[in-house]
Amino acid sequence: MEIFYTEQVADGICMLDREESGHIVKVLRHRAGDELSLFDGRGNLYRCRLTDASPVAAKARVLEQIPDWGAVPYRLTMAVCPTKRNERYEWFAEKATEMGVDAIVPVIGDHSERRIFKTERLKKILLSASKQSLKGRIPAVEEPCTVREFIRRCDPSALRLIAYCFDMDGARRKAVGDVLDAQPGRPVSILIGPEGDFSREEALLALDSGFIPVHLGSSRLRTETAALAAVAALYVKYLCTSV
Amino acid sequence: MEIFYTEQVADGICMLDREESGHIVKVLRHRAGDELSLFDGRGNLYRCRLTDASPVAAKARVLEQIPDWGAVPYRLTMAVCPTKRNERYEWFAEKATEMGVDAIVPVIGDHSERRIFKTERLKKILLSASKQSLKGRIPAVEEPCTVREFIRRCDPSALRLIAYCFDMDGARRKAVGDVLDAQPGRPVSILIGPEGDFSREEALLALDSGFIPVHLGSSRLRTETAALAAVAALYVKYLCTSV
Repeated sequence: MEIFYTEQVADGICMLDREESGHIVKVLRHRAGDELSLFDGRGNLYRCRLTDASPVAAKARVLEQIPDWGAVPYRLTMAVCPTKRNERYEWFAEKATEMGVDAIVPVIGDHSERRIFKTERLKKILLSASKQSLKGRIPAVEEPCTVREFIRRCDPSALRLIAYCFDMDGARRKAVGDVLDAQPGRPVSILIGPEGDFSREEALLALDSGFIPVHLGSSRLRTETAALAAVAALYVKYLCTSV
Repeated sequence: MEIFYTEQVADGICMLDREESGHIVKVLRHRAGDELSLFDGRGNLYRCRLTDASPVAAKARVLEQIPDWGAVPYRLTMAVCPTKRNERYEWFAEKATEMGVDAIVPVIGDHSERRIFKTERLKKILLSASKQSLKGRIPAVEEPCTVREFIRRCDPSALRLIAYCFDMDGARRKAVGDVLDAQPGRPVSILIGPEGDFSREEALLALDSGFIPVHLGSSRLRTETAALAAVAALYVKYLCTSV
């Protein structure tokens, strides 16, 4: 199944941009009357009929709208520090999109080497990963903020987890899977630190703010691997309900 | 913590090859008498003292040997069809090594586009991933074989799972996590198909041979993502026991 992307849906008509129009009409040789599947990146899949096979501005009439298409049965925000090599962050974001994530927040920690992060390229990757994995909703990529800012503004009603690799007095880290099992149904936000881990001050602020400290096992995981292990923990937990 | 690799350990002496010797002596400027941590890729960590700081053939005396160092509490074989783009397979292998896998078997399916797979490059990646994630044992990379060969020769005492995306009469696919929970402690072998999925004949052969059909959710995961989700499912399941 191939799906196409459009942001512009109004009065039952989908307007396709130059890129998608060219792909549909020039590359795939679709003609007026053909049925297409479009999605708006906001959760909706549209079964459509191509009405104007323009190679630069095609139009399609909506036959059926399917909301929450390909949605996972949970809400997950991943706040992950940028990796030294951008491609590692990009594949984390691609894989997280395939499994299911609602928002990705690049957070800058006290020990982050990379303190600047451009989100444009990431958004393109998430669009194609959403197409590939048949998800109606493209994960949001938020503008970078510091770890402290994220801790302060993170929704307190969410299950907020922070994964760090050191010990803090009186704060025993639980296995991430156990915490997820214990509190099903709540939105989840997971903070993953940089190569140099969080600072003790960041960890303390998170604990004081109600974050639950978790561990991801004894393996020394790279930032992007730790982040993906956390996404997979949630994905696998809800598998049984998702087929 | 930095660890170095040597295959040659005899009579309490570790012999380092040209590459590691150069790294230790020229790059890191270690001198005779310094303490080093070496691993042999077969599960052993050696706490050593550098006795000969040769930049091409350094030697170190073993002070302490730690077996099963960094081992995960399960045995996992991942039989995964090559991806069209090699780098996608390589990152699966790197991430699987970080989380924990004992053997990776490139398997060629009826629908595999890529039917040739070179293992040399992968072995280098797994060595550095083992170093990075502090694992004493480097996962084995077996020579490629067909899916049918793997099914036939796969140890019947292992929990053998096959993940495909279609329905077969009388063989309901279970969520991979549920199957792993139901049969803890057994060695696990997981078969992951190519972009075009397994053929029905391959699936039938697997079922007839005692493989359990599993699903990885409703998301359309790329081959390497499906494989990593399965690795993560097992990794997260045993997290609680691993710190």
